[in-house]
Amino acid sequence: MIIVMEAGASTAALEHVVRHIERLGLRPHVIVGTERTVVAVVGDERGAASSGLETLPGVASVLPILAPYKVASREVRAEATVVQAGSLVVGGGRVGVIAGPCSVESRDQIVETARAVRDAGATGLRGGAFKPRTSPYSFQGLKEQGLELLAEAREATGLAVVTEVVAPEDVALVGRYADVLQVGARNMQNYRLLEAVGRTRLPVLLKRGPAATVEELLLAAEYILDGGNHAVMLCERGIRTFETHTRFTLPLATVPWLQARTHLPVVVDPSHGTGHAALVEPMAAASVAAGADGLIVEVHPDPAKAASDGAQTLDIAGFRRMMDVCRRVAAAVGREIG
Amino acid sequence: MIIVMEAGASTAALEHVVRHIERLGLRPHVIVGTERTVVAVVGDERGAASSGLETLPGVASVLPILAPYKVASREVRAEATVVQAGSLVVGGGRVGVIAGPCSVESRDQIVETARAVRDAGATGLRGGAFKPRTSPYSFQGLKEQGLELLAEAREATGLAVVTEVVAPEDVALVGRYADVLQVGARNMQNYRLLEAVGRTRLPVLLKRGPAATVEELLLAAEYILDGGNHAVMLCERGIRTFETHTRFTLPLATVPWLQARTHLPVVVDPSHGTGHAALVEPMAAASVAAGADGLIVEVHPDPAKAASDGAQTLDIAGFRRMMDVCRRVAAAVGREIG
Amino acid sequence: MIIVMEAGASTAALEHVVRHIERLGLRPHVIVGTERTVVAVVGDERGAASSGLETLPGVASVLPILAPYKVASREVRAEATVVQAGSLVVGGGRVGVIAGPCSVESRDQIVETARAVRDAGATGLRGGAFKPRTSPYSFQGLKEQGLELLAEAREATGLAVVTEVVAPEDVALVGRYADVLQVGARNMQNYRLLEAVGRTRLPVLLKRGPAATVEELLLAAEYILDGGNHAVMLCERGIRTFETHTRFTLPLATVPWLQARTHLPVVVDPSHGTGHAALVEPMAAASVAAGADGLIVEVHPDPAKAASDGAQTLDIAGFRRMMDVCRRVAAAVGREIG
Amino acid sequence: MIIVMEAGASTAALEHVVRHIERLGLRPHVIVGTERTVVAVVGDERGAASSGLETLPGVASVLPILAPYKVASREVRAEATVVQAGSLVVGGGRVGVIAGPCSVESRDQIVETARAVRDAGATGLRGGAFKPRTSPYSFQGLKEQGLELLAEAREATGLAVVTEVVAPEDVALVGRYADVLQVGARNMQNYRLLEAVGRTRLPVLLKRGPAATVEELLLAAEYILDGGNHAVMLCERGIRTFETHTRFTLPLATVPWLQARTHLPVVVDPSHGTGHAALVEPMAAASVAAGADGLIVEVHPDPAKAASDGAQTLDIAGFRRMMDVCRRVAAAVGREIG
Repeated sequence: MIIVMEAGASTAALEHVVRHIERLGLRPHVIVGTERTVVAVVGDERGAASSGLETLPGVASVLPILAPYKVASREVRAEATVVQAGSLVVGGGRVGVIAGPCSVESRDQIVETARAVRDAGATGLRGGAFKPRTSPYSFQGLKEQGLELLAEAREATGLAVVTEVVAPEDVALVGRYADVLQVGARNMQNYRLLEAVGRTRLPVLLKRGPAATVEELLLAAEYILDGGNHAVMLCERGIRTFETHTRFTLPLATVPWLQARTHLPVVVDPSHGTGHAALVEPMAAASVAAGADGLIVEVHPDPAKAASDGAQTLDIAGFRRMMDVCRRVAAAVGREIG
Repeated sequence: MIIVMEAGASTAALEHVVRHIERLGLRPHVIVGTERTVVAVVGDERGAASSGLETLPGVASVLPILAPYKVASREVRAEATVVQAGSLVVGGGRVGVIAGPCSVESRDQIVETARAVRDAGATGLRGGAFKPRTSPYSFQGLKEQGLELLAEAREATGLAVVTEVVAPEDVALVGRYADVLQVGARNMQNYRLLEAVGRTRLPVLLKRGPAATVEELLLAAEYILDGGNHAVMLCERGIRTFETHTRFTLPLATVPWLQARTHLPVVVDPSHGTGHAALVEPMAAASVAAGADGLIVEVHPDPAKAASDGAQTLDIAGFRRMMDVCRRVAAAVGREIG
Repeated sequence: MIIVMEAGASTAALEHVVRHIERLGLRPHVIVGTERTVVAVVGDERGAASSGLETLPGVASVLPILAPYKVASREVRAEATVVQAGSLVVGGGRVGVIAGPCSVESRDQIVETARAVRDAGATGLRGGAFKPRTSPYSFQGLKEQGLELLAEAREATGLAVVTEVVAPEDVALVGRYADVLQVGARNMQNYRLLEAVGRTRLPVLLKRGPAATVEELLLAAEYILDGGNHAVMLCERGIRTFETHTRFTLPLATVPWLQARTHLPVVVDPSHGTGHAALVEPMAAASVAAGADGLIVEVHPDPAKAASDGAQTLDIAGFRRMMDVCRRVAAAVGREIG
Repeated sequence: MIIVMEAGASTAALEHVVRHIERLGLRPHVIVGTERTVVAVVGDERGAASSGLETLPGVASVLPILAPYKVASREVRAEATVVQAGSLVVGGGRVGVIAGPCSVESRDQIVETARAVRDAGATGLRGGAFKPRTSPYSFQGLKEQGLELLAEAREATGLAVVTEVVAPEDVALVGRYADVLQVGARNMQNYRLLEAVGRTRLPVLLKRGPAATVEELLLAAEYILDGGNHAVMLCERGIRTFETHTRFTLPLATVPWLQARTHLPVVVDPSHGTGHAALVEPMAAASVAAGADGLIVEVHPDPAKAASDGAQTLDIAGFRRMMDVCRRVAAAVGREIG
């Protein structure tokens, strides 16, 4: 880290800072400039309880230098991680596509959707059984019955099942049915849940929280990696900004930014990222062009009747069109869908 | 809700929308204007899975009318809720002040801080035993030992203990020691946790998530109220915006906005809301002037050595000065500190 | 607009609202629901000074229905506008690419860059002669000399010149040299400037302000269209959000959203939108995949020595690679670069 | 600035960076750490075209150290600037209050309002004659006639006139009538306008743009100060965030933050900052408690009939109540209103 001293900071203040740093077990380098004095500390600052330095007299600001994440970093593992779960391959030039309804509603709905999306080229089936809902008055999912229906749909189609787990105590149950555990955006910093999925050996799809920085996303991934589970997919699903014409703002530059810094594959969710069915196809194509390793998309046979998230859900024909465009764009950037 | 049709929408499209609404059990009112046709639906739209309406042909947009929360609303209960927990009173003209360190670190630290903040006028003691930390490499708290130390500090000072609970399975344990259960910003939409604290009869301090709208905060409160626990305090602690000179942006207009719509008291956290000790006093004073029912503030005998959040932590003298100013401002707006 | 009454609003309050609307020359429709009464007003609300309605007793909120823009709207002109300026064609399946340095620095620099970007497939040349700079201590551009150098570069290459105009009094001067007038993001709501470029018949590239909603962008375009100048290109160049790993957040979903609502073509600026050269190529490709009608990209023979914006500037080889990828992606989505 | 090298950067890359810095006339200090090498540059980096450094091979990031503003800084002038314009005093313990309608509409309206706000304790009169409006179809102000009416209102009340100037070519005209020139939020980075008001010797009220950082606000002030005009008031009027229940988010922590770094006084606009009349009084009181040197507030005899901004406008009685509260809060924090 770099400690920037105030313009008029006294020598005593500077010495106090230097001693404080030494007591933290770090090595300070004092650089006296024409306008400011700075103290550079270039050891491993991550473990240090260093934020309090800012309150010392004469300190103007403290700038971190090291990225706070480690195991997720390309510096630790240069080679890209490819996550595989049955039919689903994400990374290494393969763009895995996970499609299905927001909520599992009935056997007919999930099996029909699974067949249709598989035929269109999807390699994973999404579907919520445990639904975290903003309002306690909204449909909360079919729970274990929903998991059973997902398993039937897998049986019928061969698609890998991707479904959300919302609490540590559900990990074992959901893990019996799912091929991939999804950690939702609202739970990105639910550390007990991250630790619980980190103890399994099931691949995890970790969604970015809508107010989370990319560094916070990587630190959340570290909780899972730290448990010994290395099959983590990061998922960009949009952030909260002042824009209201879309449900969230989908910042695709996170895809190449992340890929340059982490070996973990990056999936994009253009459904939540936009909130409107009409925007899903162009943003799915844009995600592939930006280099995404995977897509997760909401599809329902009759979106107007979906129990949740209807406005952002493609119908079967719309999903087929989306896949056609994405296949061509993937080829254009040297990748392959599915 | 109001369904706005596209400018060129066909009669068939309009009829389709009308029938769809009727099938949802709601009553549509069609209003044909010079430029647009709108369909007004004025029954209780909360339960309806209505978002999918937007995907129907000819529909331009769907605008909700009713606020999605109920039990938290002034419409259900006009009179302000006053939350009391031992020495701590929040609401009804009393501005409760909860002060203490970010983390419980040792017996000396917590007892010394408790005595000092009580002497300065605080009526609640904060201190983290279970710490949700962005990085798995940061100090995670003393856990049950921290709870025991908090109980000792209560014993020594009479202050009500406010401490965070991070997972449903910890609620019973934390509840044995705490007077108020804090749900942190990262867990505002951890619904299992909300349900768990909703089943207790301990007062809850519910912090706003940094990307949560005020409506989402009220809906999170509904999860707790829905469980029968009516002693809920809402806490504004800052939101994520483009500003970086403060850790978060603290939007105090939420205080009067919330108070006009909910009977629940509103507490402000100027420590997390700013991230810098030098900004805590003016923002605490501003919170009281804006009508806050309570404050929660980080105080440590030696902030530069705090195990976490040092940069935003007041020392004892700073807290005393803050309390002096807040007392005078409270009197100016017809309220009383403590 | 829809006026939503408070739950307990009196009949007198409702009648007051109704009379107020009638005095504005509009027709109110009162709809009494089980929980709320709403008043729908479906005439042209744009001219009405209606915001004050919200302060009337008993009014909970006022929701607009009509989009506030007119001439830019697809409802007024269904067919997409194609903007042409010499070699540059934007829209109608052609993706125009405008490339060049942030600032014009010297004859060699601009002519060399112009030749290189033309050879790589660009059809427009960008280059700032009048530079609006955040700091008064930064390089402010070569001014008229810069315009002359741009004209020389056009002479040498045939590329259309796109350059920024920062004040109404400069429009005539800049218009003598430029093929396209650029209105920068900081000036998106400089109405005098919009009116001044609206009085010319030169094509205008209007950049979105970093805090502007898409509706505000369209309303800014209306100022230009209202002056009789119909050759307006909208430019998405990123918005201010909490993200700091990119200079701005580039929300590509605005491309299809705008194209569905306006006939004006939409250009994307992946240089300002990301702030880092390494992110320009993937975001340029993503823009084309999302359906952008044009790109504007910063290119310099030696970015490390650029007088401004070096961090986000491609070198010649990088621009060539970007064009190769964009050409293939354009073909994949049925469009053509250049 | 600090140049952080990538983990695996070669010695050649490091040497290239060092030479590049030397060529910029700056002195590099290389610090080799266990995980990273950084190059500290502690001379005056402001003039250097240094952003391009980031594109050099092996460079991970470039962190600035010096604040980019100078003349506005407390380091250049430690003593607080007090701005005086006739009856209006802003700073030095005096909280100046500027009140009046959004737009000047008629002689009766402006004179009646001026008398009422003066009687309630305001020392400045606001009123827009040139109105920058988001839509070309909205009321654009009475222009010079409005200025004449403002002068009449000053005649009748003795209040200093504060009114907006929207273009450099209007500065002379507006300057003949106004006591304070207001630069609106949309024009905060209209540099020609800043230069033009910088050449006058009239006090300037400079509003923060809704996407501007506090550093950008200070740099905009530098344009005015650089022209020799030192009577600059900064105005916080709210920023664009994801919140929609208020028109903007009003971040009062900017008040003490700015006051610690600049000698210029800081005014708050709780009308635009909230957008709702009901929130103006609490946020005005909060502003005073946070240490604001002034307030600017919209007041109209009949807000429901105001030509613009009615929803956020206080009526006379509401303004009187606001002033009563603010007077008491000012006394509580050792300041005086008016």
